[in-house]
Amino acid sequence: MITGFENYLRSHTPLTGEEIGKITATARRGLLQRNEKLLQQGQICRHKTFIVTGLLRTYGIADDGREAILQFSPENTWILDAESYDKQVPSRFNIAAVEKSEVLMWTKDEYDTLLEELPVLRQLSQQLISRSGHNNRQRLFTVLSASPEEKYDNFIHQYPDLLSRLPLHMIAAYLGISLKTLTRIRHSRLPR
Amino acid sequence: MITGFENYLRSHTPLTGEEIGKITATARRGLLQRNEKLLQQGQICRHKTFIVTGLLRTYGIADDGREAILQFSPENTWILDAESYDKQVPSRFNIAAVEKSEVLMWTKDEYDTLLEELPVLRQLSQQLISRSGHNNRQRLFTVLSASPEEKYDNFIHQYPDLLSRLPLHMIAAYLGISLKTLTRIRHSRLPR
Repeated sequence: MITGFENYLRSHTPLTGEEIGKITATARRGLLQRNEKLLQQGQICRHKTFIVTGLLRTYGIADDGREAILQFSPENTWILDAESYDKQVPSRFNIAAVEKSEVLMWTKDEYDTLLEELPVLRQLSQQLISRSGHNNRQRLFTVLSASPEEKYDNFIHQYPDLLSRLPLHMIAAYLGISLKTLTRIRHSRLPR
Repeated sequence: MITGFENYLRSHTPLTGEEIGKITATARRGLLQRNEKLLQQGQICRHKTFIVTGLLRTYGIADDGREAILQFSPENTWILDAESYDKQVPSRFNIAAVEKSEVLMWTKDEYDTLLEELPVLRQLSQQLISRSGHNNRQRLFTVLSASPEEKYDNFIHQYPDLLSRLPLHMIAAYLGISLKTLTRIRHSRLPR
């Protein structure tokens, strides 16, 4: 499991083997079964988590009980509830495994220490936070302005690999459209 | 105009008078008329901008020509298109004045130099980026999951001061609901 993470760091940063060793030394390994929660709404997000294999989703529960999915996080990405983690306050959202997933976790203290010791890791983290901000902005614009058809086409264009790994109701909960509308769009896209 | 900005810095940071002088020394003053653009989609966002007085909006244009408003930015807040500014690539969004507005602007080079020289300013900037990330996340959840009524109630709860400063069509374009729906909701909220 560590090897996959080391490969990720090697291909995304100029960190030395020794520095990478420092990062992996404090990592806790975790295994999540399908549907198992990494974070429950109301709990404090105590860990920064790297997904080595598998797929997770971050979601909130609307007043009417429906799930709204904010984000899918596949292998080789990081996941946390940023507000809860940054301020160590209860989270408004849930994080759960869509597939059986292997993860590596650091507590905020452990990770903050690494960030202080390793400027290259700090740089990577800032890049990822920036990118996540840009993506959220673009996603907000799509959710506000696109038609259901455009939302679906955007999604399969942006995440072609995820389509076969997700149940339809989760794609609908991510796009903010009903399962009925999603089914209609998919049907209209079938070759005749 | 500088005084308003100095007061903002004094109340939000422990910056010394000398440090504040360093920041204001490179600031350019700008005056935007109502509807005047600070940034046009396709242009590179070259400045970080602080709003001293007035109100701006960030918006994109959907394929069908409708405006989707991502953010309102009143006095004593910062505004930029983060992706365009960070990477110095063409912006996908527009920024325009809702009211006549006084702003202070720094080029990316000027501001990056200040960030290097002033750790306290760097800390403030990181806090603001984090908070903006948390807000965007919450906004995405609301847009995905709330009913039009909940969206409107959230808005007047979160931005009571903005309500009287914005034309209805802009509030609708921010909430992602039609002007007709917004008018219906406002009518149903009137005291009888």
